[in-house]
Amino acid sequence: MLEELKEEVFQANLELQKKNLVIYTWGNVSAIDREKKLVAIKPSGVEYNRMVPSDIVILDMEGNVVEGNLKPSSDAPTHLELYKAFENIGGVCHTHSRWATIFSQAKEEIPPYGTTHADYFFGPVPCTRDLTSAEIQSGYEKNTGKVIVERFCTKDPMKIPAVLVSNHGPFTWGKNAHDSVYHSVVLEEVAFMAWVLETGSPSVPHMPEQLLKKHFLRKHGENAYYGQM
Amino acid sequence: MLEELKEEVFQANLELQKKNLVIYTWGNVSAIDREKKLVAIKPSGVEYNRMVPSDIVILDMEGNVVEGNLKPSSDAPTHLELYKAFENIGGVCHTHSRWATIFSQAKEEIPPYGTTHADYFFGPVPCTRDLTSAEIQSGYEKNTGKVIVERFCTKDPMKIPAVLVSNHGPFTWGKNAHDSVYHSVVLEEVAFMAWVLETGSPSVPHMPEQLLKKHFLRKHGENAYYGQM
Amino acid sequence: MLEELKEEVFQANLELQKKNLVIYTWGNVSAIDREKKLVAIKPSGVEYNRMVPSDIVILDMEGNVVEGNLKPSSDAPTHLELYKAFENIGGVCHTHSRWATIFSQAKEEIPPYGTTHADYFFGPVPCTRDLTSAEIQSGYEKNTGKVIVERFCTKDPMKIPAVLVSNHGPFTWGKNAHDSVYHSVVLEEVAFMAWVLETGSPSVPHMPEQLLKKHFLRKHGENAYYGQM
Amino acid sequence: MLEELKEEVFQANLELQKKNLVIYTWGNVSAIDREKKLVAIKPSGVEYNRMVPSDIVILDMEGNVVEGNLKPSSDAPTHLELYKAFENIGGVCHTHSRWATIFSQAKEEIPPYGTTHADYFFGPVPCTRDLTSAEIQSGYEKNTGKVIVERFCTKDPMKIPAVLVSNHGPFTWGKNAHDSVYHSVVLEEVAFMAWVLETGSPSVPHMPEQLLKKHFLRKHGENAYYGQM
Repeated sequence: MLEELKEEVFQANLELQKKNLVIYTWGNVSAIDREKKLVAIKPSGVEYNRMVPSDIVILDMEGNVVEGNLKPSSDAPTHLELYKAFENIGGVCHTHSRWATIFSQAKEEIPPYGTTHADYFFGPVPCTRDLTSAEIQSGYEKNTGKVIVERFCTKDPMKIPAVLVSNHGPFTWGKNAHDSVYHSVVLEEVAFMAWVLETGSPSVPHMPEQLLKKHFLRKHGENAYYGQM
Repeated sequence: MLEELKEEVFQANLELQKKNLVIYTWGNVSAIDREKKLVAIKPSGVEYNRMVPSDIVILDMEGNVVEGNLKPSSDAPTHLELYKAFENIGGVCHTHSRWATIFSQAKEEIPPYGTTHADYFFGPVPCTRDLTSAEIQSGYEKNTGKVIVERFCTKDPMKIPAVLVSNHGPFTWGKNAHDSVYHSVVLEEVAFMAWVLETGSPSVPHMPEQLLKKHFLRKHGENAYYGQM
Repeated sequence: MLEELKEEVFQANLELQKKNLVIYTWGNVSAIDREKKLVAIKPSGVEYNRMVPSDIVILDMEGNVVEGNLKPSSDAPTHLELYKAFENIGGVCHTHSRWATIFSQAKEEIPPYGTTHADYFFGPVPCTRDLTSAEIQSGYEKNTGKVIVERFCTKDPMKIPAVLVSNHGPFTWGKNAHDSVYHSVVLEEVAFMAWVLETGSPSVPHMPEQLLKKHFLRKHGENAYYGQM
Repeated sequence: MLEELKEEVFQANLELQKKNLVIYTWGNVSAIDREKKLVAIKPSGVEYNRMVPSDIVILDMEGNVVEGNLKPSSDAPTHLELYKAFENIGGVCHTHSRWATIFSQAKEEIPPYGTTHADYFFGPVPCTRDLTSAEIQSGYEKNTGKVIVERFCTKDPMKIPAVLVSNHGPFTWGKNAHDSVYHSVVLEEVAFMAWVLETGSPSVPHMPEQLLKKHFLRKHGENAYYGQM
């Protein structure tokens, strides 16, 4: 079932490796079929060069395996929380990419310093609060999803398709699996430039609000004029 | 029409990717036919590995599409301003390459610290002023060209074939499309070394004026003796 | 003899190069046959692309060559000390990988700042004390092993499978040769992120103990639930 | 004539590119035939992927072209000074590799911080003084060689086969062309680690003299025991 979705998720996971965002079995990508309420996700701990499309696991929204012989990614409960809370997203991606992870470990948001950021993220990329000891000990992966959702209570996940989980690493999302990987790649570029800039030139101001708006809106929304549509 | 120019612009755009200056559809290169007053430029938002030479768009100097089925790069008006103001340039290149973009976000010029810089840039690579809110809201891409030209009012664009646009990224130029890409590659090397040097060793002086002169003039101008001519 | 072990050690040494942890002949990996009390190790100063499995040298626990036409790695006595002291390890790896070596040169441990660290190392990765002049002048390589073992007198080498040798570089180990290389790769990721974090954000706290525990134990030990077992 | 030497110099120049020490036509390698007193060197400004062995230029010790249709590297007079002053070297290499060049631009020597350094350089890698205006204006490339030689008046070039030219970049040498390139590669590793260490941990001490001695002498000199001889 859902062969097309599995193929898409399979390809998106391989893309993670091609873009040098992951090593070994690190990282995971999923996608959702909103009508059937089923999620396709990478199996846990399987190497990228041995994985085949049929290894992709199908889960229902409670995390039960509906199809597949392998265990799903241990981060699956985080993905499910995001799909439940962010109704318009179609894909979720998680990596430990170097620069975004450094920001996560610093517990700092990534401020908008330039048009590269503004082309994809309409404001700072936020960092979650720490999980409490109780949240870590029981239902850890699900609670990771909950603190992400909590962080977006006053934000639009479609305008800032990324988050940093404190002491952990980034999660990104998008209209489908490929799009969520794309945002992980861009996030890493943006994180790199922001970290180097901030630590080398500590008093540098954020970019002008007007320019942030201009760049985000020329690529997104109804008056966008970038690309071929 | 202009098949040769389109091929050159096509190849120069691919070169951007091979040199790791761009990811996805980022970056754009153009070239001008000075006699016909026509510019060939990359289409907007087309992936490099799907692009073919016939996708290159031909524009007149007012930005009207003279040939091509795709929309031109959204940065086309910036390119046109540069061709109008800098009469001896034949190609223009724009990227968000990491280190040059960091300097742009820091709103700082790149000072000459060594012969690598002096071999190509006869002085600091300047950074533009911020655009005003009015300049951002209407005619943004054209105004980006204008602030670049304004920044060069007392500089020779043939001796410093690069600029940093504040909060945005670098534009470079040269005698043709390939040459403009070459300058983007060199700019990235120079920006990397200058940033690491400045932030690690804040009181380091610029290179001696005499040495800057020697290196630039042994490669450029009538008494040049580098290379095979 | 021990053809399988030699093949494993051969492949693990090549893996070092593929993962960009070594250049030229740098680095060395070994594995032990605990029953036969024999160690297979890379020959000294042989280039990776000329090495064949039969070049791998077999040593007894006193460092005598039992099989092989080449001299063993000059670091062999260090490997032997580790096998003698750490009874459950099956492979040892040594590199001069860039970021782990920087920590070694700084004589600093690598603190746990995030889940990437906690997934593999159950606490800081320690750095040895300096060797004394006497320890350097006679039996240098053997003494390097001894100071590593000394550093682990109150630590469990199976829970922290890596060490930094002061002014030198990292040694890692694991259940076999491949596993020891895997830990070198992870160590380099972790070292990179920790160094950049610490130097850019000097007051950043270590990760919460609870989170360190959670991540290490979800991958290791009897209640592990990561991966396919 | 000297076909073998030309082939060696050709291959060594290509090696520069494979090791990512140069872009475009940057960098140059030469080798000397001590008996015939002739030097083979890369032609000026020829791209690596178009160069063929017969493009290598043969010079006498005064810099006259003895064989070859192309102009020699503009840095040839620097190479010749080194061959004249350092009687035991057989090859010379010059690059603008990133980290060694940063040290050159900082006008700082590279101190020995670890065994990676000590395995190849028996003490700090020195930086030359600035050239005077007169030295720059007339005989610039020859004078570059002279300030290098001046810097080594109390040093043994066989024990420290590298130098940083102030505001310029590194020159390295060795027993032949390949060996000089090898030292450029190692220098870049060492420079990288030293710069990151120094700027991130400014009070870090140099490595113990005893350890420096041990590592250099286990690889070089009559009691060396590293490698297969």
